Amino acid sequence: MAKASPVSPLAPKSYPECPDIEGVRFATAAAGIRYAGRTDVMLALFDKGTQIGGVFTTSKCPSAPVDWCRARLPGGKARALVVNSGNANAFTGKSGVASTKLTAQIAAKATGAPSTEIFLASTGVIGEPLDATKFDAVLGDLAQSAVPGGLLDAARAIMTTDTFPKIATATAEIGGVEVTINGMAKGAGMIAPDMATMLSFIFTDAPIAAAALQAMLSKSVVGSFNSITVDSDTSTSDTLLLFATGAAAKRGAPTIATAGDRRLASFKRALDGLLLDLAQQVVRDGEGCRKFVEIRVEGAASAKAAKRIGLSIANSPLVKTAIAGEDANWGRVVAAVGKAGEQADRDKLAIWFGDFRVAYKGLRDPSYDEGKVSDYMKGEKIDMLVDVGVGSGSWTVWTCDLTKEYIAINGDYRS
Amino acid sequence: MAKASPVSPLAPKSYPECPDIEGVRFATAAAGIRYAGRTDVMLALFDKGTQIGGVFTTSKCPSAPVDWCRARLPGGKARALVVNSGNANAFTGKSGVASTKLTAQIAAKATGAPSTEIFLASTGVIGEPLDATKFDAVLGDLAQSAVPGGLLDAARAIMTTDTFPKIATATAEIGGVEVTINGMAKGAGMIAPDMATMLSFIFTDAPIAAAALQAMLSKSVVGSFNSITVDSDTSTSDTLLLFATGAAAKRGAPTIATAGDRRLASFKRALDGLLLDLAQQVVRDGEGCRKFVEIRVEGAASAKAAKRIGLSIANSPLVKTAIAGEDANWGRVVAAVGKAGEQADRDKLAIWFGDFRVAYKGLRDPSYDEGKVSDYMKGEKIDMLVDVGVGSGSWTVWTCDLTKEYIAINGDYRS
Repeated sequence: MAKASPVSPLAPKSYPECPDIEGVRFATAAAGIRYAGRTDVMLALFDKGTQIGGVFTTSKCPSAPVDWCRARLPGGKARALVVNSGNANAFTGKSGVASTKLTAQIAAKATGAPSTEIFLASTGVIGEPLDATKFDAVLGDLAQSAVPGGLLDAARAIMTTDTFPKIATATAEIGGVEVTINGMAKGAGMIAPDMATMLSFIFTDAPIAAAALQAMLSKSVVGSFNSITVDSDTSTSDTLLLFATGAAAKRGAPTIATAGDRRLASFKRALDGLLLDLAQQVVRDGEGCRKFVEIRVEGAASAKAAKRIGLSIANSPLVKTAIAGEDANWGRVVAAVGKAGEQADRDKLAIWFGDFRVAYKGLRDPSYDEGKVSDYMKGEKIDMLVDVGVGSGSWTVWTCDLTKEYIAINGDYRS
Repeated sequence: MAKASPVSPLAPKSYPECPDIEGVRFATAAAGIRYAGRTDVMLALFDKGTQIGGVFTTSKCPSAPVDWCRARLPGGKARALVVNSGNANAFTGKSGVASTKLTAQIAAKATGAPSTEIFLASTGVIGEPLDATKFDAVLGDLAQSAVPGGLLDAARAIMTTDTFPKIATATAEIGGVEVTINGMAKGAGMIAPDMATMLSFIFTDAPIAAAALQAMLSKSVVGSFNSITVDSDTSTSDTLLLFATGAAAKRGAPTIATAGDRRLASFKRALDGLLLDLAQQVVRDGEGCRKFVEIRVEGAASAKAAKRIGLSIANSPLVKTAIAGEDANWGRVVAAVGKAGEQADRDKLAIWFGDFRVAYKGLRDPSYDEGKVSDYMKGEKIDMLVDVGVGSGSWTVWTCDLTKEYIAINGDYRS
């Protein structure tokens, strides 16, 4: 594993108070899967009737737990979630498949839930066999000791190179009744989610059917987890699951069957905000990062084109190293726009760093003041606005800088 | 500019002896465009009748000299080439256009050639106005002093962050007559040529018409310059020009009009080999590199799919940092295959580092010996073979590792 790193300078200053979600209980344990002296297994238990939605990596080489979850998702029901860190159970062949099956059997025995309603996720090293018998030693106790609180501890247990646990909370109302959404995420490297995300688990007491959860989730990730990148490397294990216990029905919340239901307006807004919060926390823990970068692209041929241009800038090693060097090197931004393959009018292109327009109408802004812009680049949050001058499509993406520390972390991850 | 770097450890041990090409003369000068104490302008003069082919960056934000060359290429004739380093004349708006025009006028006056047959290339910082009057001070002298030798000096004058000049030579026969091909290239960062290349100039005495040169060049770059990557950042300035003076006709070589002519077989082989040599030299001077990496992909659905998978691996920061860390982290190779978006059969995937098969049939090779593979990773040349198990498409790409030195060079390039 990577050497213990200090907490990311971009970490939130405090953790939010997350109210308990009725129908959800957590427990964690140190099973010694890879790490010593820390928790590495997390169990979440859900009351009967809990509905689930999920999205996964688009990798053509997904992990065994991703395969497992995909196959069980159409059932729409969840009773337990077992997550381990330290080993991704990815590219482990038949032994990986057997390992997921055994894990679910152990969890079924420990919790009394059917194994078809048990969801699994693993994160860590790729290609190492995962010894599922290690779960045997801990899941029985965890099932007994699970409590409604403990979201933060649960988020800690799923960390790998993360330097801080990522949690978020939001409230919404459905039919006049307040519901709560809590979420956690992990991820610090191999972050370029594509129609999916890193590990992230969302819990709500809202009474919403699986089909509606699925539709909302698929939509909400587009502007959040699918709009971030740390290093352009899409993981084999990206998994985002949304569990709805429906407990708020007891307090009078109506049960919602479809995502088109207008009574979901508040919930959708809250979910969007919460996913974005978690996604940005993932970027704020990008390996070796020192700057949080927001890139807004406007004037593109379409929103899709704007997103592609934004990610081209966000994934450019030259742009990212320039930001690490506190250099407003907008020439590299021009190059990244140019290589994106989307329509752009070089002679109408304009670029801002913060409030400073550095390039305008195809050349350096006449009012460009390198001193002022350099001061701006010393900040921790860098906002970039790029108008590519051809249409009205816009998109925002988030990333971090690329530092020597990223190389150090990743040149030494397995040793 | 970047701090003076020691020569890349991957540099060739010696420069080849390049015979003079009849009809080509070189001269260089220090015009003080950006750098001090070194040459930064290169003039190549061609005898009347010289034919030209060229390919350029696919960037949507190409530099002014790229626009200039593209507009003049259909003429098929070249009398002079003016190249400067230190300033790319990219994203410089109308002043950039004016600058290319003025440069060509100055060169036309100095050489007596029509400005429509003068080709230009610039490399260096993006977004800085290029003061073309600086050429006025040197081009007259250069035109007078140009000599047939001097390929190596010319290659030195076009360097930016390059740590060594890149030249190559080859011979071929056309109709039983020996012809020579010489070439030079520059490039160390912003290297991910796409249907084009970094700056590279090729010279031959073969009597080949422009249309045939163009067709051969477009084909030859696919497996050479378009199959390398240093950092996935495609430049605004990529330019590859091939000049054929036709002087070998005096020695009896037949004049060739079309690329389909069978008498070009030897020339095509020699051109392919020479471009690959130069392309690999560019990788061997990748910013901060310590390892030269060859990635062969087999078993893909098509050659195109194999290339895309190869470049996905070659551009993966996690693969590149692992190689820098001498870690045979094939799990990251699996992830890079998975994110490429091309068909791959996870359970048939096999990966070799050198002669060591590390992954087979979807999991770690049973015979995997980490000690032996680790020893292999300490070498300077890393060969990777990836069989994705779905078809018979194959491709080879070349890249280098990603080190802290890359960050240092690029976090500090403009300062």
